Amino acid sequence: MELLKQKIREEGKVLPGDIIKVDGFLNHRVDTALMDAMADEFAKYFDPSKVTVILTAEASGIALAAICARKYGLPMIYAKKAKSDNIEGGLYQSEIFSYTYKKKVTLLVAQDWLKSTDKVLIIDDFMANGFAVRGLIDIVQKAGAELVGVGIAVEKGFQKGGDSIREQGIPVKSLAIIEGTENGKIRFRED
Amino acid sequence: MELLKQKIREEGKVLPGDIIKVDGFLNHRVDTALMDAMADEFAKYFDPSKVTVILTAEASGIALAAICARKYGLPMIYAKKAKSDNIEGGLYQSEIFSYTYKKKVTLLVAQDWLKSTDKVLIIDDFMANGFAVRGLIDIVQKAGAELVGVGIAVEKGFQKGGDSIREQGIPVKSLAIIEGTENGKIRFRED
Repeated sequence: MELLKQKIREEGKVLPGDIIKVDGFLNHRVDTALMDAMADEFAKYFDPSKVTVILTAEASGIALAAICARKYGLPMIYAKKAKSDNIEGGLYQSEIFSYTYKKKVTLLVAQDWLKSTDKVLIIDDFMANGFAVRGLIDIVQKAGAELVGVGIAVEKGFQKGGDSIREQGIPVKSLAIIEGTENGKIRFRED
Repeated sequence: MELLKQKIREEGKVLPGDIIKVDGFLNHRVDTALMDAMADEFAKYFDPSKVTVILTAEASGIALAAICARKYGLPMIYAKKAKSDNIEGGLYQSEIFSYTYKKKVTLLVAQDWLKSTDKVLIIDDFMANGFAVRGLIDIVQKAGAELVGVGIAVEKGFQKGGDSIREQGIPVKSLAIIEGTENGKIRFRED
């Protein structure tokens, strides 16, 4: 998606350790018009009429997933991390390693809200090693629901999380795939 | 807002300790059409053309804030909780007590994204003691920005967080104010 790549080129920052900082428009301050355009772009690859629910993980996936779900006229579920006292009863769980928190966290979805009849589109803002997305896929499978595909805003292609999920035959569409950085400049994978 | 009150009556659950569970449409599974209607409702009380940015706190405020911001054509900022390695540099901070986590957490907003020229509408899904909202107000004041008001989906009126903020002269609009529960039934404050 050229508009997103342009935004990453103009406003993204490369930090030590290949951290790509896009918190000015994606995951701290949120450019909601850009996210609306991303929702249109995902709809070219995944037919929203064949989806019943959008699934993401808290916290940074929620804004994009909410705007996509609103645009498609669908509900959205966000998996919670670790256990909050306000969630009781049956839960689908998947333990993942979180680079943000530098420890294992458990993704939780209440069984009340994700059903075996659901057709799920996973949406997330960022994918590197793909641990969060794999956790979400695990939850979809535990629920016995159908996985329609995975839509990601920004993928770090050189960390192989996305490619390993594609190799399982799961449709993954990332709107911008970063292949590497050189002297603070970002190189994208060709579409 | 009658539509929201009706939804709370029909689907909300009262748990021990006066916990009102609305995770089927507000803060786990999200009814995005209802949130879109809430955005229209907030716009009756706060003029979006006089707002430059929507501010909320992660994680449960993000979906509603994103949908409101998208509807008004505005950017959205969500305050992060505790310190993530991906945020460096200057931060506005406010320490709050979180009932979800049963401990103190620090709300963080990067100084790059909230400016003294901003006119801020705070949006959150839930207010009880109002600690999170007070933390957000604190951050707006530290940034030297203008606070337009506070829009809340569900307020627990009997916990007085909202009223204490109103007493400071800050415009607060909650779309449903719960005054109490009796035998599992929810009683609302009259508009």
